[in-house]
Amino acid sequence: MKKHNFSAGPCILPKEVLKKASEAVINFNNDNLSLIEISHRSKPFVDVIENARSLVLELLGLENKGYKALFLQGGASNQFLMTAYNLLNKKAAYLNTGTWSSKAIKEAKLFGELVEVASSKDKNFNYIPKNYTIPTDVDYFHCTSNNTIYGTQMKSFPETNVPLVCDMSSDIFSRQLDFSKFDLIYAGAQKNMGPAGTTLVVVKEVILGKVERIIPSMLNYQVFIDKESMFNTPPVFAVYTSMLTLEWLKDLGGIEFIEKVNQQKSALLYNEIDRNPLFNGNVAKEDRSHMNATFTLADEKLTEKFNTMWHEANINGLNGHRSVGGYRASMYNALPLYSVQALVDVMQELERTA
Amino acid sequence: MKKHNFSAGPCILPKEVLKKASEAVINFNNDNLSLIEISHRSKPFVDVIENARSLVLELLGLENKGYKALFLQGGASNQFLMTAYNLLNKKAAYLNTGTWSSKAIKEAKLFGELVEVASSKDKNFNYIPKNYTIPTDVDYFHCTSNNTIYGTQMKSFPETNVPLVCDMSSDIFSRQLDFSKFDLIYAGAQKNMGPAGTTLVVVKEVILGKVERIIPSMLNYQVFIDKESMFNTPPVFAVYTSMLTLEWLKDLGGIEFIEKVNQQKSALLYNEIDRNPLFNGNVAKEDRSHMNATFTLADEKLTEKFNTMWHEANINGLNGHRSVGGYRASMYNALPLYSVQALVDVMQELERTA
Repeated sequence: MKKHNFSAGPCILPKEVLKKASEAVINFNNDNLSLIEISHRSKPFVDVIENARSLVLELLGLENKGYKALFLQGGASNQFLMTAYNLLNKKAAYLNTGTWSSKAIKEAKLFGELVEVASSKDKNFNYIPKNYTIPTDVDYFHCTSNNTIYGTQMKSFPETNVPLVCDMSSDIFSRQLDFSKFDLIYAGAQKNMGPAGTTLVVVKEVILGKVERIIPSMLNYQVFIDKESMFNTPPVFAVYTSMLTLEWLKDLGGIEFIEKVNQQKSALLYNEIDRNPLFNGNVAKEDRSHMNATFTLADEKLTEKFNTMWHEANINGLNGHRSVGGYRASMYNALPLYSVQALVDVMQELERTA
Repeated sequence: MKKHNFSAGPCILPKEVLKKASEAVINFNNDNLSLIEISHRSKPFVDVIENARSLVLELLGLENKGYKALFLQGGASNQFLMTAYNLLNKKAAYLNTGTWSSKAIKEAKLFGELVEVASSKDKNFNYIPKNYTIPTDVDYFHCTSNNTIYGTQMKSFPETNVPLVCDMSSDIFSRQLDFSKFDLIYAGAQKNMGPAGTTLVVVKEVILGKVERIIPSMLNYQVFIDKESMFNTPPVFAVYTSMLTLEWLKDLGGIEFIEKVNQQKSALLYNEIDRNPLFNGNVAKEDRSHMNATFTLADEKLTEKFNTMWHEANINGLNGHRSVGGYRASMYNALPLYSVQALVDVMQELERTA
């Protein structure tokens, strides 16, 4: 029996996607060759990466607006470096909302002066700072849209005249935003897009070419744009599986449709957290993430009983990150509503029997 | 019917490996979860990457000799950059044997002075330079063991007192060498190890920490060593499939065994190239690669006929690289001897019917 997979990432992917990806490893495109043993320059694979790149722009509403979609490697961690390498001339502004923002700040510091416009570190990142000021003389402003570890999510983004750079690793394709407000979006695939091993970059081409330093080829967005995202051999399996997931999302009705499902899932769980006296939410209510809900038991003595119960209910991946403790339910696009219901049932059963 | 896959890379992988990799995408470790939807910090996956890292050192005979095996991202192209970032203080020496060496040289030039000790560019890289001198005051010497595009292979490596760095992307695990002579070996997975999307680095730890610059985390070998190759989310599928291929090789009898098979395969093909008056080898005989044999038709008018014949014989991936033309038969570890026989049969049939 399939598990209810609340894993924070790598995480649940649609069953249909897993089935097709599995088949392609044996026989891709009915050519009697595996997807992973053909040339990445062959037409069948070039079609895959071109389709994936188009679907990204289509789903985000960014077609014909000067954006390019790239499938790179190295995860969001490599983007912490690449964004600074490509965009940071003298000074950049960062919003610090947690572990990933902090890491982005650390890497960017090697390339220029950094202004931390605000931080929620004072309360272990359990809220999103508001009412900060972004300097007008910075090369860009960087933020993290969703914080997997803490369970916070930016519900609005600042108006600014400087380029807006956003790490959307854990909530891209999960909700409608005016994506054209952003100049560079990046996201590790392994939440809402595909397997670990590829990283999506969506960049407005006009912001590039403004730094003075020479950028190594593998860190240079323009090099990958000029080579249609194939400067070197791409991570074929991860790109193909991402394409399948993007097709799945488009067939469902795109971001508009999945956002409603995601709201239903998170409402179901947060309502139970708020109603059930045995549980406490970790995060300021207005900043709660629709992707990752973090919560704790009101009485730690119930830990063993609750852990046994959710394991028995075939639930996977509910432990909180070690830096926060407690529990974290990640509800990415592919997680069905009934899996959230299964968790809520366990929470109510605990209340009845505790 | 399965094709005879002479693709230059991504290339043929063992059938058993493809089968197990395909199954793991649906159900890994009998946990009713896909390999690509579980946490990379979960025990089943940590076991995979640890096993893969151990198998690398075991197969290369580098256990307990101060080496670490890492599974990174970005392909060999990223290693052109990382080797220089981590090792190049002032000056480095490079041997130029083709496209990949040239690219390595280009990226390294951003970090210091480069000495090209020798080049075979004068003859479109159809031989391996010999009798060059490696300066003693360089930080390291870099070479490319096998040149996929041209079909040349280094049969011996220079004796030198400076650290020896080698791009073995296209012939690692294919032949016995004293690997302990090398201080850093790197290889994109997509020839003899696995799917595109991961890059093997084997590094003697003692050579690190000697450059003055600050190295960004994602480019820093020491960071990945300290984090057991999991500084950030690794490319899970590519690492798992590489582990399967390494297990397959070990079960066969390791490099000692596969080297004999590879010699049989290349002997069969090169003998035919030399015997058959319709074909010419491209490369100096003593430098011929056991992995990639390049050849041309003596009479270009036979091109269409030959192309039709090998396609009809279910052969795939025989076209030469665009910078060389002609044909290239890549005979990586997983290619069976009978596939080479199938090609030789076509070459002989052409001779009979031309």
